[in-house]
Amino acid sequence: MRQAALLRSDKGLGTPGTDRKKVKPAVAATTIADDDRKDHFVVRNGVRCAGVHLIVDLYDAKHLDNIDLIDAALRKCVAAAGATLLHIHLHHFEPNGGVSGVAVLAESHISIHTWPEAHYAAIDIFMCGRANPDACIPVLREAFKPKNIAVGEHLRGQGA
Amino acid sequence: MRQAALLRSDKGLGTPGTDRKKVKPAVAATTIADDDRKDHFVVRNGVRCAGVHLIVDLYDAKHLDNIDLIDAALRKCVAAAGATLLHIHLHHFEPNGGVSGVAVLAESHISIHTWPEAHYAAIDIFMCGRANPDACIPVLREAFKPKNIAVGEHLRGQGA
Repeated sequence: MRQAALLRSDKGLGTPGTDRKKVKPAVAATTIADDDRKDHFVVRNGVRCAGVHLIVDLYDAKHLDNIDLIDAALRKCVAAAGATLLHIHLHHFEPNGGVSGVAVLAESHISIHTWPEAHYAAIDIFMCGRANPDACIPVLREAFKPKNIAVGEHLRGQGA
Repeated sequence: MRQAALLRSDKGLGTPGTDRKKVKPAVAATTIADDDRKDHFVVRNGVRCAGVHLIVDLYDAKHLDNIDLIDAALRKCVAAAGATLLHIHLHHFEPNGGVSGVAVLAESHISIHTWPEAHYAAIDIFMCGRANPDACIPVLREAFKPKNIAVGEHLRGQGA
């Protein structure tokens, strides 16, 4: 599933082979915890947790007032991650054109809030189970063309 | 994590009034940036940012499979923060009873994901504008009675 997700996420980026080579070393291994507990916790880089939460900030990005493009990008992220979309809601603000949106997933959620006038977007990708949140990053790069992107990671629920 | 905003307490499970007193000293001042930009950025503890994002983890918490209680708690959080609810969606999972829910706000969002069998919940409170995300913490303590609560803070969009 991880390889399939990477292949999908690299589509349309021009040079998939090169992209995959660049992305692979940074992709962390996430597996389902194989103990007797039935709570669907995962193991990421050896750490047992409830889910992986990526904090993604896009700077100098484009199309941040385009709600249709944002809707499509969120759906592509869900597909790339191998996740299951349960519900999606986006709201378009006036007069600045900013968008707030959330995709509720079987594996948690993706959220986006954009400030088009500042060319900035705050995105969260929170996934548990077998979904691969890292696979969303190339999709976001392709959709919003940020000059800078910062990705932080929280392994939520350690010790729970 | 910008600052050591890790608030951990095993106390405060009794009366809400006492909880508020304990939390107050850690509450940060958030004001609207008063420069000429019209992007509704805020200033928190002297730092200009797009919004305040609290990462909240509840451990040894109760009622995490009670979707009605969770719905009510999210609405109380919105009211306590002085925020504006645009849309709310909750999903109840089987067989473990876990709940995923998101409240989309005029000021960003609140999300919750619960693992009842692990007595753990992952909550995000992301607010821009004049809303006060800190005001949600006593509401969450009262609703879910966690033995431990961890609150981290990201000031999103610094430098945007």
